[in-house]
Amino acid sequence: MPRYRLTIEYHGGPFVGWQRQAQGTSVQGAIEAALAALEPGEHRVQGAGRTDAGVHATGQVAHCDLGRNWDPFRLAEALNHHLRPAPVAVLAAARVDQDFHARFSAIHRNYTYRIVNRRAPLTLDAGRAWRVSNPLDAGAMQAAADLVIGRHDFTTFRSVQCQSASPVKTLDDFRVERRGDEILCHLGARSFLHNQVRSLVGTIERVGAGRWPVERMAEALAARDRSACGPVAPPDGLVLTGVRYPGDANG
Amino acid sequence: MPRYRLTIEYHGGPFVGWQRQAQGTSVQGAIEAALAALEPGEHRVQGAGRTDAGVHATGQVAHCDLGRNWDPFRLAEALNHHLRPAPVAVLAAARVDQDFHARFSAIHRNYTYRIVNRRAPLTLDAGRAWRVSNPLDAGAMQAAADLVIGRHDFTTFRSVQCQSASPVKTLDDFRVERRGDEILCHLGARSFLHNQVRSLVGTIERVGAGRWPVERMAEALAARDRSACGPVAPPDGLVLTGVRYPGDANG
Repeated sequence: MPRYRLTIEYHGGPFVGWQRQAQGTSVQGAIEAALAALEPGEHRVQGAGRTDAGVHATGQVAHCDLGRNWDPFRLAEALNHHLRPAPVAVLAAARVDQDFHARFSAIHRNYTYRIVNRRAPLTLDAGRAWRVSNPLDAGAMQAAADLVIGRHDFTTFRSVQCQSASPVKTLDDFRVERRGDEILCHLGARSFLHNQVRSLVGTIERVGAGRWPVERMAEALAARDRSACGPVAPPDGLVLTGVRYPGDANG
Repeated sequence: MPRYRLTIEYHGGPFVGWQRQAQGTSVQGAIEAALAALEPGEHRVQGAGRTDAGVHATGQVAHCDLGRNWDPFRLAEALNHHLRPAPVAVLAAARVDQDFHARFSAIHRNYTYRIVNRRAPLTLDAGRAWRVSNPLDAGAMQAAADLVIGRHDFTTFRSVQCQSASPVKTLDDFRVERRGDEILCHLGARSFLHNQVRSLVGTIERVGAGRWPVERMAEALAARDRSACGPVAPPDGLVLTGVRYPGDANG
């Protein structure tokens, strides 16, 4: 059966998350239903990042197997037709080898977390950013972020439900960028623990707000204790922006 | 009665437009209702730009008169409290002189129109951009835009319902900027005719798509005939980004 790689964008708001659940609509389920409209029967789509409820993607990658040989452009068009009106779109499709696995072959994942730092509630960006009303010092947030870059035991910054075998991960990038009243946090790693991005962003926010000294970030990491984490940032601001595989440009 | 200048952001989607109508909820009506929650009685708020249904704002300006002397920060906070959950927010409030009029004192208005030029339907940006699926040549669009900058009779590019006394306006800026798969059109003028921005953008889109030669833009302008206009671009992509008054920075 030919295998296809799909690049996917979605608004996480109406979904229970990427992954199928006993209750509610998942992004994965929406795509599997669209595949079933193309070729009857059971379909499985594997995603690179199992994003939580309310988390968005502009560059999720998934793979699926189909019975027919589809022209990739036609496949993307047909899936988008059947996905409507769900806020999920296939940006690109490509034929890949049988050994391509969206989750296990991935060598790098990028997330961006968006904070809008102002008093007024969100209107145009409601559901798409975390509004923080007290002034944040992006420089202090970057100083805190710098303390967790590299290979560490991230037990403090993972959900107690995290199923990863090891809490040790290598965080390659954690860049804090201020653009007017927005603060964008860019994180990159081969893989992330469950809730790691939101836990890290929620903790550096405490530093940016002046509630935590910068050094407390290093102490939190060293504690290897979930209770040393700051509050977990809400899902609204998080976007899975890209996944890289061997052989990709910049891969 | 003390007068206040309000800087306002809104998502135009759920509204019949800025202006009060016989039916439906207007942005103006939502703000007037919030003012009535602060000080009982009838309130009138005057806006600089009478945006249509579905058109957004990040920098609308309006003025209102109140009975009490409000601290501007408190006024903005109180209005935002009463505006919830409508997607309207007061970004800033300031005390102004009695001769300040949001509409008649304005000396410059800026709009940005956002096109997403790709095959896939919109998900995160649904309702916030115009998706154009055929490839657009932004250079050709700029060449067409250049032909209408300056002082002209814009009869071709105004709605037949336009109530402006004269169709002669001066278009100061019309800049077309490509950013990846987005095309942003930035327009600036002292004032605009009804539907002028959407008429101009819808017409240069025809040029960008290769359906119209660039020169047809000059012919359309010279025709001074509404039927010479291209299709009017949908409201979703349009944002009123700012209004300037005498004495403002860059004013």
